[in-house]
Amino acid sequence: MHLEDCESPVERSCCLIELDANDGGNYDIVNDVSSPAAGDCCSRQSSARHNWEMNYQEAAIYLQEGENNDKFFTHPKNAKALAAYLFAHNHLFYLMELTTALLLLLLSLCEAPAVPMLRLGIYVHATLELFALVVVVFELSMKMRWLGFHTYIRHKRTMVKTFVLFVQFIEAIVVLVRQTSHVRVTRALRCIFLVDCRYCGAVRRNLRQIFQSLPPFIDILALLLFFMVIFGILGFYLFSPNHSDPYFNTLENSLVNLFVLLTTSNFPDVMMPSYARNPWSCVFFIVYLSIELYFIMNLLLAVVFDTFNDIEKKKFKSLLLHKRTAIQHAYRLLITKQNPSGISFKHLEGLLRFYKPRMCARDRYLTFKALNQSNTPLVSLKDFYNFYEVVGLKWKAKRNREHWFDELPRTAFLIFKGINILVKSQAFQYAMYTVVAVNGIWILVETFMLQVYGVELLLKTTGLGPIEYLSSGWNFFDFLVTLFAFLGLLTLAFNMEPFYFIVVLRPIQLLRLFKLKKRYRNVLDTIFELFPRMASLGLTLLIFYYCFAIVGMEFFAGVVYPNCCNTSTVADSYRWLNHTVGNKTVVEEGYYYLNNFDNVLNSFVTLFELTVVNDWYIIMEGVTSETSHWSRLYFMTFYIVTMVVMTIIVAFILEAFVFRMNYMRKNQDSEEDNGIVLEKEIFKEEMVALTELYKINCATYEVAQLQKIIAQMDKYEQPSMLFLGRRSRTKSDLSIKMYEEEIQEWYEEHSRKEEYQQRQEALPSSSNNPLKPLGLRQRSQTVI
Amino acid sequence: MHLEDCESPVERSCCLIELDANDGGNYDIVNDVSSPAAGDCCSRQSSARHNWEMNYQEAAIYLQEGENNDKFFTHPKNAKALAAYLFAHNHLFYLMELTTALLLLLLSLCEAPAVPMLRLGIYVHATLELFALVVVVFELSMKMRWLGFHTYIRHKRTMVKTFVLFVQFIEAIVVLVRQTSHVRVTRALRCIFLVDCRYCGAVRRNLRQIFQSLPPFIDILALLLFFMVIFGILGFYLFSPNHSDPYFNTLENSLVNLFVLLTTSNFPDVMMPSYARNPWSCVFFIVYLSIELYFIMNLLLAVVFDTFNDIEKKKFKSLLLHKRTAIQHAYRLLITKQNPSGISFKHLEGLLRFYKPRMCARDRYLTFKALNQSNTPLVSLKDFYNFYEVVGLKWKAKRNREHWFDELPRTAFLIFKGINILVKSQAFQYAMYTVVAVNGIWILVETFMLQVYGVELLLKTTGLGPIEYLSSGWNFFDFLVTLFAFLGLLTLAFNMEPFYFIVVLRPIQLLRLFKLKKRYRNVLDTIFELFPRMASLGLTLLIFYYCFAIVGMEFFAGVVYPNCCNTSTVADSYRWLNHTVGNKTVVEEGYYYLNNFDNVLNSFVTLFELTVVNDWYIIMEGVTSETSHWSRLYFMTFYIVTMVVMTIIVAFILEAFVFRMNYMRKNQDSEEDNGIVLEKEIFKEEMVALTELYKINCATYEVAQLQKIIAQMDKYEQPSMLFLGRRSRTKSDLSIKMYEEEIQEWYEEHSRKEEYQQRQEALPSSSNNPLKPLGLRQRSQTVI
Repeated sequence: MHLEDCESPVERSCCLIELDANDGGNYDIVNDVSSPAAGDCCSRQSSARHNWEMNYQEAAIYLQEGENNDKFFTHPKNAKALAAYLFAHNHLFYLMELTTALLLLLLSLCEAPAVPMLRLGIYVHATLELFALVVVVFELSMKMRWLGFHTYIRHKRTMVKTFVLFVQFIEAIVVLVRQTSHVRVTRALRCIFLVDCRYCGAVRRNLRQIFQSLPPFIDILALLLFFMVIFGILGFYLFSPNHSDPYFNTLENSLVNLFVLLTTSNFPDVMMPSYARNPWSCVFFIVYLSIELYFIMNLLLAVVFDTFNDIEKKKFKSLLLHKRTAIQHAYRLLITKQNPSGISFKHLEGLLRFYKPRMCARDRYLTFKALNQSNTPLVSLKDFYNFYEVVGLKWKAKRNREHWFDELPRTAFLIFKGINILVKSQAFQYAMYTVVAVNGIWILVETFMLQVYGVELLLKTTGLGPIEYLSSGWNFFDFLVTLFAFLGLLTLAFNMEPFYFIVVLRPIQLLRLFKLKKRYRNVLDTIFELFPRMASLGLTLLIFYYCFAIVGMEFFAGVVYPNCCNTSTVADSYRWLNHTVGNKTVVEEGYYYLNNFDNVLNSFVTLFELTVVNDWYIIMEGVTSETSHWSRLYFMTFYIVTMVVMTIIVAFILEAFVFRMNYMRKNQDSEEDNGIVLEKEIFKEEMVALTELYKINCATYEVAQLQKIIAQMDKYEQPSMLFLGRRSRTKSDLSIKMYEEEIQEWYEEHSRKEEYQQRQEALPSSSNNPLKPLGLRQRSQTVI
Repeated sequence: MHLEDCESPVERSCCLIELDANDGGNYDIVNDVSSPAAGDCCSRQSSARHNWEMNYQEAAIYLQEGENNDKFFTHPKNAKALAAYLFAHNHLFYLMELTTALLLLLLSLCEAPAVPMLRLGIYVHATLELFALVVVVFELSMKMRWLGFHTYIRHKRTMVKTFVLFVQFIEAIVVLVRQTSHVRVTRALRCIFLVDCRYCGAVRRNLRQIFQSLPPFIDILALLLFFMVIFGILGFYLFSPNHSDPYFNTLENSLVNLFVLLTTSNFPDVMMPSYARNPWSCVFFIVYLSIELYFIMNLLLAVVFDTFNDIEKKKFKSLLLHKRTAIQHAYRLLITKQNPSGISFKHLEGLLRFYKPRMCARDRYLTFKALNQSNTPLVSLKDFYNFYEVVGLKWKAKRNREHWFDELPRTAFLIFKGINILVKSQAFQYAMYTVVAVNGIWILVETFMLQVYGVELLLKTTGLGPIEYLSSGWNFFDFLVTLFAFLGLLTLAFNMEPFYFIVVLRPIQLLRLFKLKKRYRNVLDTIFELFPRMASLGLTLLIFYYCFAIVGMEFFAGVVYPNCCNTSTVADSYRWLNHTVGNKTVVEEGYYYLNNFDNVLNSFVTLFELTVVNDWYIIMEGVTSETSHWSRLYFMTFYIVTMVVMTIIVAFILEAFVFRMNYMRKNQDSEEDNGIVLEKEIFKEEMVALTELYKINCATYEVAQLQKIIAQMDKYEQPSMLFLGRRSRTKSDLSIKMYEEEIQEWYEEHSRKEEYQQRQEALPSSSNNPLKPLGLRQRSQTVI
C-alpha cells in the first residue's frame, strides 16, 4: 500500500493540523474537521496509520542510533528484526544484562580462593555461573535475531563475547563434572560481559580511547626502555665490581632495579652502596632520573595529552556528523509527497511518541514550536537539524507569579516575600560567609554552630521553595554539607561510637568558603562536570584491576605469609617475630605479608598499592622470591598498564580543565552560565485546536492533560502562556561554540560526500544495503 | 645644529644612493657623484656626520632594548649616560658580572662547613669575598651612571641587589674582624648576583613566570591542604585508639604522615598497622589518595598548565608590541625632513654599523633590499617593522654550481657527483638504517661494526661538504654518536680502564633508528628546541637548591651520622653495626647518614633526593630527631618549592610539545621545515655603485670586500648574483604564524593606545619623560 492513501482527503480532514504563520509566532490552527464523526474516522484509517506508525518507529530508532553513536549497519532490517530490536532495547533488558554481568564478576568472591566469609560450595557457584551464562546466551540470541546472522558475524565485540561465553560454558561444565576448580585464568575474561552492557557505553569509549592513545604511548615507552637498557648495561659495568652493592651484581638485577627506579620506588636506597664507595657515582643516578623521570616521562604525558586532545576533537566531529546523518534518515521517513519540504506537526508528534514515550502532549507541541524557526506549518530539514538540542529541553510554564508562595494569603505572602528578598540579597550571602569563616575558627575550639546552618537551610528552603533550592548545584552542596554536619551532631548527642567519625566531617563545612573565589567556583564546577567521566574512567581501571586480580589469584594465592621471603633482599618487610635478644624482647612487625593475592578483595588492595607505586618492589620481590623470576613480568606489565590509564586520566583532567578555561576566556562577556534556556509562547486557541486534534485521535489521556492547561489559562484569564525550556549545558554544547567556524567546514565536506554517495546509490544498489527501508522508505527516498 | 645641514646638496652628492625601482626588483643605482673628490667630501661633513652617528647609535640601542625586552625607561638620557651604557653593555662587562657572581657562589665550597678538599682559611675566603663584592660595587656604580639616580632607585631588582650587597659587605667585614664564621644564612641571598647577570635573562624570565603562576597554584594548594587537615583529624580519631600504630598517635603525627602520604613516600607502610587490625581501614587511605594524589594534584597541574599557556601568550604579545615600539623609536631617529616617509640606505647602513658591527657591507645592503618590499629607494615604517625578522638572516651567495666540488677537475667531479647522488638517495638511507638495525643485534653479541659508521660519516662529509654536513641537526647527531662510538673503540683498543664505560655508550648508536619514525623526529626536534629553555629551567632549580643548601648547612651540618637517630621511627636506616648475635655476625648497613648537609656538594645530593621524593621522610625524620620539630618546616617548604618548579617544568614541556604539534597540524601541507629562507638578487651595477659609495666614505675595508664580489661576478660573467638569507625558525616565528589573526587585533589596539599617548605627549611633558631624546629627537618627532 502506498502512502498517498494516508494523505487522502478523508484522512486529511481529520488528522492534519494546518498551521498558518501569522506575525509574531502566533499560530492559528486551521482545523478542517468538517463532517465525519471522530470515532468513525479513527477506525477507518487504522491501516494507513499502521504504516505511518512503522515510519515513526523507524525514524525514532534512527535518532536513537544517532544519539548513542550506534552504527547504522546494525539498524533492524525487517519487521522481525524490529521486534527483536525493541525487545533488546529497553531498560528491563539492559538491567538484566547488567545483573548477569555483575553476578558473573561477583562470583569470584565465592570461588576458591574465596573471601572466607563468602565461600560457597563448588556445586553452588558453578550452578550460579551456568545460570548466568544461560541468561547471556538468551541475550545473545535476541541480538542475533535483531542483527541477522551476517551482521552478527561482522560485529567484532559480539563475536568476542560469544567466544568468551563458549569458553566459560565449557569450563563451568568441567568444574561441575570434576567437582573441583582448576586453574581458571580465563575468568579474567568475564569483564567482557560487563563492558558489553548497554550502561557501560562510557567504559567502552574509554577503552577505545586508551587503545587509540596506545601507538604514541608505545613509541615513547620504547624510547624510555631504550635508555633504561643503555643505563642498565652501563650501571652493570660501573657498579658490579662493588660486591657490597646488591642492586647491580647481575645484568638482570641491574635492569630490574633501573625499571623500579623509573618509579623512584627504590631511591635513594639503590644509590647508597655505590655512593658510599664513591660520591661521584651519584651523577649516574641523577642523569638517569633527569632523562627518564623528568624528561621522557613528561614527554609521555605531553604526547598522550596531545593525542587525547586530537582524538576528543575527532570524536566530537564524527559524532556530530553521525547525528546529522541520523537526522537526515529520520527526516526522509517523516516527509510526505504533499509536503516534501518539511515535517508537519502530526508526523513530528508521531515520532516523539516513540522517541520519548513519556513526553506529554504539551511538550511535544512545544518541541515542534521550538524546532520550527521559520514560522511555517512545517519543520524544514535545516530546522530539524536542531532536534537533539531541542528535544532535551525540560519545559516549565513561566509563572507570572514569580514565587511559589504567590497564591498564599496576604500576610503569609508578605512574610515569605521578605524572606525571599533577604535570601537573595548580597548582604545575606556575605553574612553567611562570615558565619562560615567564624565557624571555621569556632570548630577549632570545638563548639557547635550547626544550628545556624540549619536555620540558613530552613530559610533558603522556605524562601526559594524546595525544588528551586535543590536545583542549584551549589545549594545542593550546602544541603549535603549541612546534612553531614547534622548527622555528626546526632552522633555526638546519642554517643554512637561506631559513627563517631562523622563528627569529624563537620569541618567540611568550611568548603563553603571556597565558593567565594571565582577560581574555586571554576574548579568545583569543572569537578561536577568531570564527575561522570571520572567515574567511568574509574570503572575502566577497576576492570583492569579485575583481570589482574584473577590472574594474580590463580598464580600467587597463598605464596606470601609471615616470615616467607627470607631468601630475598626484602626479607625484613615480611619478618614477623617476637624473639628475645639478651634480656629484651625484640618485636619485628613486617606487615607486607598482608599485601597478598589470597582473595579478590585482598588482591584489589594489593593492586591499589601497586598503583600508588611507592615500595611496590617489596611486594614484587616478595612474590618473586617465593615463585619464579617470571612473576616480575606480571608486576611490570601491571605497572605499565596503570601508567597508561593514569596518564590518560591526567590527560583527561588536563583537557577538560583547559577546555573549560579556554571556553570561559572566549566567552568572558557572556552572562553567568545558567544552562540553555528557550522561551515559547502558546496561545489559548492553539491549545484548543491541539485538544481537538487529540480528541479525534482518541488520545483521552493527552486530552485530559491539555484541558488542565486550558483550565489554568481560564483561571488566570491569560490569552497565552509562556513556557521555558531548560537544560544544563553539556560538553557538546561547549564544543559546538568552541569550534563554531570549523563545524561549518565539516558540514560542507560532509554534504559533499553525502551527495557523492547518493549519486552512487542512484545506481542499482546491492541487496545488503544497510539502509534498506523497513516499510515505506522507497517512497520517501523518491521524495527527496 | 640642525639636521638640514646634513641633507645639504654637498652631502647628498656624495653620500646618498638613490635607488629607482625598475620592474622585477632590478635596481639601478643612480649615483650622482659629480664633482667633489672623495677625500674632500669626507672631511667636510664630519660634524654633521657626528650628529648622525649619535642618532644611529641611539636607534641601535632602541632596537637592542626591544630585542632584550629592556624597558625604555632605562634608556640612557644623555651623552654621559650613553658612555656608561656602552661600557656596561658589552660581553667583557657581562663576563665580569658572571665571573664575580660565580666566584661568590663557589665560595660556599670553601667556607666552613667546606668540602674537605677545598677548605680555605677564613682570611683567604673572606678576602676573596670582599674583592668580589668590590667588583660588584663597581658594576653597580656604572649602572647608576647609566640609569641616573632616579631611575636607579625605581629599578626594583637593582635595589634588592644593592641591599644584599650591603648586607654581604658588612658580614664579610665582621667575619674578617672576628676571624670566625658566624651563622650566615644570608649567604643564600648571593644567588641574586647570578640572577642579575646579563646572561641569566632566561633565568629571570623563568622566575617571573614561576611567580606569576603562584596565585592559582596557591589556591589549589590550599584546597589540597584543607583536605589534608580534614583527613588528618579524621585519621587521628579513627586510628589513635590503635596503640601499635605509630603514625596516627598524635594529631601532629597524623598531619605530618598525611603530608608525607601526599608524596606517597610512606605508602603502604603508613596503612599497614591499621590494615592489619581492620581490613576496611584501607578505604580511608584509598579515598585520601584518590582525592589528593590522583585528583587535586592533577588539577594543580591543569591549573598551572593553563596559567602557563596564558602567560606564554601574553608574554609573546607584550614582547611583540615592545619590539614594535622599539622599531618606531628607532625609525623616528632615522628619517629626515626631506624623506619623512622612509629610511634611506645610508641611514640604515649607519644603524647596522652600530647594531651589528660585524655584519659585512654586502650583508648590510642585502638587509636593506630584503627590508625594502615596495621597491622605492626608502624603507617605509611598514617595511621596517620586519627588522628583527630580516636582520637575523645569514646571507650566502646562491651558487649556480650547486655542489662544493663543482670547481674540481672533471674526473674528481664525476666521482664526487656520484657520491653526492648516492648519499642523497632513499636507498642509501634505508640501507644505513638496516645496517643500524643489524648492528643493534650485533652489539648484543658484542661485535664491532663501527667502521661502517666511520665510512658513512666519511662518505657524507665528502658528498655534502663538511659545513653542509654539520649544519643539519640530524647529521650532527650522527656525528656525535659516531664520535662517542669511536672513543669507545679507542678505549677498548688501548685498554684504558677508567674510561671503560664509554664502550657501553656504543648502543646509543641505536638512537639513529629513531630517526626513521616521524613521531620520534618530532619528539627529538622538540627536544632540540626545548633544550635552551630546559637548561635555563634547570639553572633556576639549581638556584633554589643553592638557597636551600646554604640554609640546610647553617642549621643541619653535622647533625646526622651513623647510628644517630635511635630515638626516631627511622632509626634502622641510620644504623651501621657489625655486631654478633648468637654465633653469626649481623651486618646492618643503613646508609642514610650519607644524606647529610655537611657541605655544599652533599647538600645538593641530599636535596636531589628530596626532589625525587621517594623515602624523603627518612631524611626528614632523621634530621628532625636530632634537632627540633621545626626542622620539618624546612623539608616541607622545600617539597612545595620543588613541586612548584617541577609542575612548571611539566607544564612547560607540555606547552612546547602541544604547541609544536598544533603548529604542525595547522601547516600540514607546507614543505619540510628548513628554517626561514629569503632570496635576493644583486646586479653588478648596484655593486659598483655601492663600492663607489664606500670609497667616498673612506671605508677601505668594505670596499675591498665588495670588490672581491665584483671580481667573482666578472669571473663567471654573471650580470647579477643571487643571495640566500637563512635562519632557523624560532618559537617566535611559530607563534606569529599561530596567532596570525589575533596579532592584527593587537596591533590595532596598540596603535590606538599609541595615538592616545601621542596626543598626551603633545601637551607639555614632564621633565623625567623616559623618552626624552639624546640628541636630535625633537626634530624627528615633529617629522612623524
